[in-house]
Amino acid sequence: MNDPRPADATRALRAGLPPALAQALRGRLGERFSTTAAVRDHHGRDESPFPPAPPDAVVFAESTAEVAEVVALCRAHRVPLIPFGVGSSLEGHLLAVRGGVSLDVSRMNRVLAVNAEDLTVTVQAGVTRKQLNDELKSTGLFFPIDPGADASLGGMASTRASGTNAVRYGTMRENVLALTVVTPDGKVVRTARRAKKSAAGYDLTRLYVGSEGTLGVITEVTVRLYPLPEAMSAAVVNFPSLAQAIDAVIRIVQLGVPVARCEYVCEHTIRAINAYSHTTLREAPTLFFEFHGSEASVKEQAELAQEVARENGGQDFDWAARPEDRTRLWNARHNAYFASLQVRPGCRAVSTDTCVPISRLSDSITGARRILDGAPFPTMVVGHVGDGNFHAVMLIDPADPAEVAEAERLNGAIVRLALSMDGTCSGEHGVGLHKVDFLEEEAGDDALELMRRIKRALDPDGIMNPGKIFRM
Amino acid sequence: MNDPRPADATRALRAGLPPALAQALRGRLGERFSTTAAVRDHHGRDESPFPPAPPDAVVFAESTAEVAEVVALCRAHRVPLIPFGVGSSLEGHLLAVRGGVSLDVSRMNRVLAVNAEDLTVTVQAGVTRKQLNDELKSTGLFFPIDPGADASLGGMASTRASGTNAVRYGTMRENVLALTVVTPDGKVVRTARRAKKSAAGYDLTRLYVGSEGTLGVITEVTVRLYPLPEAMSAAVVNFPSLAQAIDAVIRIVQLGVPVARCEYVCEHTIRAINAYSHTTLREAPTLFFEFHGSEASVKEQAELAQEVARENGGQDFDWAARPEDRTRLWNARHNAYFASLQVRPGCRAVSTDTCVPISRLSDSITGARRILDGAPFPTMVVGHVGDGNFHAVMLIDPADPAEVAEAERLNGAIVRLALSMDGTCSGEHGVGLHKVDFLEEEAGDDALELMRRIKRALDPDGIMNPGKIFRM
Repeated sequence: MNDPRPADATRALRAGLPPALAQALRGRLGERFSTTAAVRDHHGRDESPFPPAPPDAVVFAESTAEVAEVVALCRAHRVPLIPFGVGSSLEGHLLAVRGGVSLDVSRMNRVLAVNAEDLTVTVQAGVTRKQLNDELKSTGLFFPIDPGADASLGGMASTRASGTNAVRYGTMRENVLALTVVTPDGKVVRTARRAKKSAAGYDLTRLYVGSEGTLGVITEVTVRLYPLPEAMSAAVVNFPSLAQAIDAVIRIVQLGVPVARCEYVCEHTIRAINAYSHTTLREAPTLFFEFHGSEASVKEQAELAQEVARENGGQDFDWAARPEDRTRLWNARHNAYFASLQVRPGCRAVSTDTCVPISRLSDSITGARRILDGAPFPTMVVGHVGDGNFHAVMLIDPADPAEVAEAERLNGAIVRLALSMDGTCSGEHGVGLHKVDFLEEEAGDDALELMRRIKRALDPDGIMNPGKIFRM
Repeated sequence: MNDPRPADATRALRAGLPPALAQALRGRLGERFSTTAAVRDHHGRDESPFPPAPPDAVVFAESTAEVAEVVALCRAHRVPLIPFGVGSSLEGHLLAVRGGVSLDVSRMNRVLAVNAEDLTVTVQAGVTRKQLNDELKSTGLFFPIDPGADASLGGMASTRASGTNAVRYGTMRENVLALTVVTPDGKVVRTARRAKKSAAGYDLTRLYVGSEGTLGVITEVTVRLYPLPEAMSAAVVNFPSLAQAIDAVIRIVQLGVPVARCEYVCEHTIRAINAYSHTTLREAPTLFFEFHGSEASVKEQAELAQEVARENGGQDFDWAARPEDRTRLWNARHNAYFASLQVRPGCRAVSTDTCVPISRLSDSITGARRILDGAPFPTMVVGHVGDGNFHAVMLIDPADPAEVAEAERLNGAIVRLALSMDGTCSGEHGVGLHKVDFLEEEAGDDALELMRRIKRALDPDGIMNPGKIFRM
């Protein structure tokens, strides 16, 4: 067999993986075992602001059985293993901070079983959410969870992802029915059956959802699907103040209006969007809504939302039912991230991710705004406010240690404010490397001790994505 | 201090608890430590068909701190501890099969915090669902999970309970936001914050939901609440055949109609209800519906359900919107259990609890009906069919070992049929003692090994509700 590795990768390999492991992996996987610098670099970074930390090698798995073999080999050599989907993590989950093998599942991208009549689908972990929805088109069903990035289902399950639709459809926590996982022992375990509910034993499914690759490798995901709504409509409304916008959201949630999406975009972000998209949106705190249901129900929801918005000072209520008009309205929200980055070319966006009980949302965002006010870099706020979750976005120069440190300090202050309101340090991005300290503050020693005991019980050698979620 | 124990209980105590533990518990709890035969007997039985297995003593805790002390004492003496709510378990969860202390939390019955604006409430574990809804009356909110019995919230969380409303509102899995648990070490852990979603670390909440007291004692429960629907309506419709009734259910679920309750009652059960309630309902396979929403939405849902029912041969569609009429319609369903017991005075009801993907529901119930046909005792079928969950009810003479064995054999056959359809042995009752073997078949060795490792990691001495869920 030819050795596809260039000389520099061979050097790195010698420094990293035990030669016997490298040989075994190469023998088993051929060209799907790689130590080239480009491949390792690609797998040693994600969308987080952390410096890259490349693995010693990358393996491209094509089946659950292969994953099991790779896990068993790494276990035998006590070498770290880091599951990798599409690399869209925001918190450093994918960085090989202790070296080892990055296990890329992106080639495991087959939709295995569409059970339309059961409203479920089973996919390999590398299938992305857009790919899934494309493949579902003929069924009249869709998978609603939308974290923004075109993430893999395995990665979304691993980080307990959610996004804009979660206010109505829930997060990965509520929508994963079952997983196939390879345990750190190399065993293949199906965590549950496809029944909608079960009271049969410990909830292994939800133990793995959000475990960030630290308890094994997710290789297959079974999720719930939903009938495409008969009708959809979108609405945009802006407000004289942040507080009035958020008060409107709180009221709409408390009334039980089943809004499908409910997003806040601050005036600074709207300004960035206007500059980026050449639009003339009013540069004011703005709410974006989407309603799903029957014709009558969508109309009813939109009218109720409009009424509440008006009572809270909402103006310029713009709404649309036709697909092209809905897209036009929502374009601003969808472009928010890229528009923000243009505000400071070359910057990186550091995002907070707190989530609080809905009644504290106004205090939480107002407080965050105050914390951000003195920042030496541009800052903005966007959020999945229907869930009490928002992101303060800080546009920092990643090469300036002072800015990096200041962003971390501000992030910490915003997290502490959320914790004081019975909130969480992470609504949807996960802990990764970035929030290890925040999780300690949030969970406390005794809860962390439970997590660590579970980790040690399932992964006694600590090979699975070490350094993430908590210190051992 | 006076010793309140009668002579016979003293004998039992001597045979059971280590004297030093008994003395410590009595010293700490006074009369709330009991070894009287009546109290022990009451805590050594539940609604399961198993013979009683009384604990050596019963402790009535009044606070989380007291629970922590009791756990620490039992741990120090390596004595089993069994959490006890109201005793409505159906699967033998509460039986002290290895002796030890029953820890009764029914006096921990305070509603601690109604956060109406967040749609959450935090209660002590002994609060029952009816008590909770009574206390919520002035808020315009309600807690929907309704397993039939007036169970405690702690017990409902422990067994991952659900019931008639789960088809719309989910089970305890989806509705518990956070728990306070006392770990087997006697540590008090809050499993999560009150935020609606979180991606911060392992999902300890859902690890404890459904763990049946084997990982610690749940002392406080925070659950989601819902606005009382603006409108409700009920409907009853009967069908020429089981298959037609279930096909109607499948179609309604697949259409995404957000029905709040969707119950099946077989013709044998209707006959029992007629005899019990002196009614003249048509003795045919029957569906009971409840719809929640706005006036318009409820009307729309009911019309759609009626249309689907008619297409599947449904007849005598009876519907009601006024509370008293809804109650009249649903009375039959609510009385099904007690009416069934009257069919054979002195009998006990053994209930299966399988749940399958909705497309297999018709095959699953039809197959179960065939399995039951030769039974030497009366059998009936009722079910939360909107979730794919049903109960075959077998009215056995608990004193006749042949009938007990035959019921177990039929139960096993129905479980195996459900497993062959990617279903589960327990939709909502839990595993307890009764389904230990079924869970082995369902989960397989490798998944069970994960559960056992978690158990050993959190409860190395095995004091928490030993013998339940799995063999160690």
